[in-house]
Amino acid sequence: MNGISITIQRQVLTGLLLFSVTIGIAQSHDTIDRIEPVCWFTGMKMHAIQLIAHGKGLSAYTPAIDWKGVTVKAVHKVENPDYLFIDLDITPAAPAGVFPIVFSRKGKPDRKYSYELKQRNKGVKAQGVTSKDFIYLLMPDRFCNGDTSNDTIAGMFDNVVDRNMLSARHGGDLQGVMNRLDYLQDLGITALWMTPALENNEEATSYHGYANTESYHIDRRYGSNELFKALTDSLHARNMKMVMDVVPNHFGEKHWTVVDLPMKDWVHQWPVFTRSSFRDQVVPDPYAAAADRKRMTDGWFDSHMPDMNQSNPYVQRYIIQSHIWWIEYAGIDAFRIDTYPYNDLSFMSKWRKAILDEYPAFSCFGEAWVQSVANQAYFTGGSKLGQPVDTHLEGVTDFQFQYAIKDIMSGSTDSAGDINRLYNVLASDFLYKNPYANVLFLDNHDMSRYFSVINENVERYKAALAVLLTTRGIPQLYYGAEVLMKNLSNPDGLVREDFKGGWPGDQVNKFTAAGRTAHENEVFDYIRVLANYRKNNKVLQDGRLMQYIPGDGAYVYFRYDNAKTVMIALNNSSKEIKLDGERFSERIRGFSSAVNVVTGSRIKELKTFSLPANTTLVLELLQ
Amino acid sequence: MNGISITIQRQVLTGLLLFSVTIGIAQSHDTIDRIEPVCWFTGMKMHAIQLIAHGKGLSAYTPAIDWKGVTVKAVHKVENPDYLFIDLDITPAAPAGVFPIVFSRKGKPDRKYSYELKQRNKGVKAQGVTSKDFIYLLMPDRFCNGDTSNDTIAGMFDNVVDRNMLSARHGGDLQGVMNRLDYLQDLGITALWMTPALENNEEATSYHGYANTESYHIDRRYGSNELFKALTDSLHARNMKMVMDVVPNHFGEKHWTVVDLPMKDWVHQWPVFTRSSFRDQVVPDPYAAAADRKRMTDGWFDSHMPDMNQSNPYVQRYIIQSHIWWIEYAGIDAFRIDTYPYNDLSFMSKWRKAILDEYPAFSCFGEAWVQSVANQAYFTGGSKLGQPVDTHLEGVTDFQFQYAIKDIMSGSTDSAGDINRLYNVLASDFLYKNPYANVLFLDNHDMSRYFSVINENVERYKAALAVLLTTRGIPQLYYGAEVLMKNLSNPDGLVREDFKGGWPGDQVNKFTAAGRTAHENEVFDYIRVLANYRKNNKVLQDGRLMQYIPGDGAYVYFRYDNAKTVMIALNNSSKEIKLDGERFSERIRGFSSAVNVVTGSRIKELKTFSLPANTTLVLELLQ
Repeated sequence: MNGISITIQRQVLTGLLLFSVTIGIAQSHDTIDRIEPVCWFTGMKMHAIQLIAHGKGLSAYTPAIDWKGVTVKAVHKVENPDYLFIDLDITPAAPAGVFPIVFSRKGKPDRKYSYELKQRNKGVKAQGVTSKDFIYLLMPDRFCNGDTSNDTIAGMFDNVVDRNMLSARHGGDLQGVMNRLDYLQDLGITALWMTPALENNEEATSYHGYANTESYHIDRRYGSNELFKALTDSLHARNMKMVMDVVPNHFGEKHWTVVDLPMKDWVHQWPVFTRSSFRDQVVPDPYAAAADRKRMTDGWFDSHMPDMNQSNPYVQRYIIQSHIWWIEYAGIDAFRIDTYPYNDLSFMSKWRKAILDEYPAFSCFGEAWVQSVANQAYFTGGSKLGQPVDTHLEGVTDFQFQYAIKDIMSGSTDSAGDINRLYNVLASDFLYKNPYANVLFLDNHDMSRYFSVINENVERYKAALAVLLTTRGIPQLYYGAEVLMKNLSNPDGLVREDFKGGWPGDQVNKFTAAGRTAHENEVFDYIRVLANYRKNNKVLQDGRLMQYIPGDGAYVYFRYDNAKTVMIALNNSSKEIKLDGERFSERIRGFSSAVNVVTGSRIKELKTFSLPANTTLVLELLQ
Repeated sequence: MNGISITIQRQVLTGLLLFSVTIGIAQSHDTIDRIEPVCWFTGMKMHAIQLIAHGKGLSAYTPAIDWKGVTVKAVHKVENPDYLFIDLDITPAAPAGVFPIVFSRKGKPDRKYSYELKQRNKGVKAQGVTSKDFIYLLMPDRFCNGDTSNDTIAGMFDNVVDRNMLSARHGGDLQGVMNRLDYLQDLGITALWMTPALENNEEATSYHGYANTESYHIDRRYGSNELFKALTDSLHARNMKMVMDVVPNHFGEKHWTVVDLPMKDWVHQWPVFTRSSFRDQVVPDPYAAAADRKRMTDGWFDSHMPDMNQSNPYVQRYIIQSHIWWIEYAGIDAFRIDTYPYNDLSFMSKWRKAILDEYPAFSCFGEAWVQSVANQAYFTGGSKLGQPVDTHLEGVTDFQFQYAIKDIMSGSTDSAGDINRLYNVLASDFLYKNPYANVLFLDNHDMSRYFSVINENVERYKAALAVLLTTRGIPQLYYGAEVLMKNLSNPDGLVREDFKGGWPGDQVNKFTAAGRTAHENEVFDYIRVLANYRKNNKVLQDGRLMQYIPGDGAYVYFRYDNAKTVMIALNNSSKEIKLDGERFSERIRGFSSAVNVVTGSRIKELKTFSLPANTTLVLELLQ
């Protein structure tokens, strides 16, 4: 490959009408093969940006810009002579447009690179995902193949498309997702979280997505940047939101800045390959050895996932700018942050602050796969747990909730886990500033399907789904959970199977009622009814929560606000339970009957409640 | 009983030369049988005190005092006409001395009660118990009987002395403790914590001590107030400290203010007897129902333990004053607070603040028998866990440490619990303001003897004791642990057996080396060596802690300060472990050898460490 061919490729990728002009090839082999951010926007609060420019021998050049409101403030040469870092200041006076960055050598203009300042995205954007939402998590390679023409892309490493191979690409894409928005909206989903869709030009398991090789380009096997933006716009048109999965902790080993490092400490270097210890406890531990801390946060998550040196100011700006770029460009509403505890918290605080400054309503939740509520809360913003910085992180993926709801339902049919496990997790919410910003889930792409974990017990499954959709937080559903997709996560490809009906020629189509079994429809409808009730009733979104110490085998809680009161009663045992309403008088007082939110049936008095085995009753109280 | 006889009895009890004079009995049956605080002190910061006065028909009287610097500020009549609450202000000008409180009726002086203002205690007092200390916990009835003449006291309810009955009194007393101070000091103990020694004139299991019937009087079966003060003075003379076990949450049902309630809401009243739910989670739970909170904190701890209404201002002052009185009178250094989570935290904050105002170095630790570090830390002062108030409580009895050190040692000889359990507890210390103020223990009077819990494995026992004495916090030893006293706590009397040799005529005397078995001496000496090393080396008291993620089956931590570095390495497995010193270079750097603190043997180089099975090595590093 040479500079020119790469440049052309990028034109296709970015779709931003950028082009690179190389003058005087005969004179020199030097070229400018790319500059990032691929463009910037007028009128941003983040007006001081840093371009990373790459080209053979580029450090011998001096860049200049002649465009109203744009000033080159500084130019940084780094270890690698093929890089320049160019600090720009872009005042509000700068108009949108394409202008050349002229690179001079020994005082003579020699190369030009066309750079664009775009108008800001005037559409809906950066709304934040909150407890009003219901998130659908899917892996774009495995949900729906809407465009078979992009299944393989010439020149990319991992081009085997084989739906029978767990680790191969299966062909799912953004067009496929776009085609299923009606389905998701009907189910009651209000926000979409896809595992990363950025280019992942790794040699193996590239469908996985967490080893990005580009920071500004959607993987062409999923579609284009334009299609990603169009998908976001379509979601917004349906009052739905887009959550982008970002991975500030590591890039892919084939990321262009890793293949040709700007400087040695762009990534965390180790004498020999060193994996993270995966022991998050050292982060908050006041007694941790520096060596243990370093291993945890600077060790690599995997051999093909170089750990970014987030204390390097060039890396910091590169990551911050690329993420802000996506919010502005595509209009996304929230970030899910991969492997949150593995990041440098000082950087993450700075990163979050930069985003908040630009988009005050934009929200973030971090994956915090840790072992206690306190260790989870440690990473959330505003919690006063001795952190050196405030992370400003709204919420985390609530693994403690998941462990509990797994434990209470995963016994045999006749035995159930101690229901206090779930109660205790919620009772620990004093550790958070805002526990309502946590994302709740029964399973995700890294864990066994919940339906399998609980021995495919449909009643218990519904009982758990009811809790998911009625307790505090932002519920998240993993694709296919609504149609009883199953399997344990060993290997993890088993929990990343294709959604049946998403591929041309699929014999069965679970996207339609006709394609689903009776049980699947039962569960699908159960979720749909509850999710839509939730969508239409603020009380289940941000209403207050009151929970009672589990008694008589039942766990009872209420969501309530000035308008409504909903009583939720969970029985995870195999026996019917009678509950005395008197115990709950604090919340029941003033009500005389109730309606079952799922079945619509009326409960005529509130003196006693009959709670069938393995059931969660969801009752709206009536006066 | 009549007022006069009670008055005489109190004279004996208080030893404060108080006396009550009743004038004109022929005229009236009214009398003044007591006033508390039994005396007060000159020059206290707490100059505004409230007397509780009790006597037949007393509310018909008006008290007056003619004593320099003493003013009656207010007199409160309450529901029960036999009480008056009298607010006094005592300025610094008030001299010590005995003066009459004159009670008038219909304008005529009718009764007098001699009240005393004493000089402040000029001795050592209120030093606080800190991580410099090593606490010995004993039950005074079960440790040593130094005065058989007080084994039974005529007129007291529970007068069966039978050493063969677990629930009867056995005759141990303060004189017995006094007689064993040499023993304790030799062992390396620096602070004594006795279960409550206040009068416990309950009908059954009165040896237990947690249902006090007097607030100002030591149980006469243990001795007198004077003897208690003398014991404290003796401790101080040995540079040791006295910890008093206080029970603000409840009194005994035979407490004089409970037998004749000043007002109905002096205690928490329930329509029928209602026990606490013992579910401490509701205290911090942001979602708890008010009914659940009430049950937890206002429910009675036991049927003979009325729950004090700590939101009643009369109760508040009664408790605060009595506790401050003991600090001043006897010179005690710290409080251990019984059943801390069951108290009203607003009151406990106020209570603690009142003590701190008077005695800035005085310290407190609360019993917090809860199920997570966060729930434990919630009760400690300065932790920012959403508490409505700052409890100003320095530390708690560290049950999380106890659970962990129990789990890691209680497997069979060939298997051991996951050593990470212990590491994780310490790694959660970010939740505390000062985890060094927590009290560490292997067992106490309410739980199975640790030696039995770990299957009487002497090596593991020593390994656990080494951790107790070298990690952060205030170590506490339960009496007899040093001589391998055993038993599981079912019934709990089994873990409250007499210390052999503490009673006249005992065949065996474990207080002497000759009376102990080889194993007992081995353990006794092990504790003595480590405790005395600890006492003489600041590094194990308040030195910094650094811990390493357990690896190769070993848990390694360091205590270090500018003067010394001590390496502690725990192997709870049944196999020898070789450790590579390189991993600990952060702490080992600069040292070239070490000495085993217990055996005195030298370790000539620090490149590798050999760690025998079921052993904790304690090594002082040498340059």
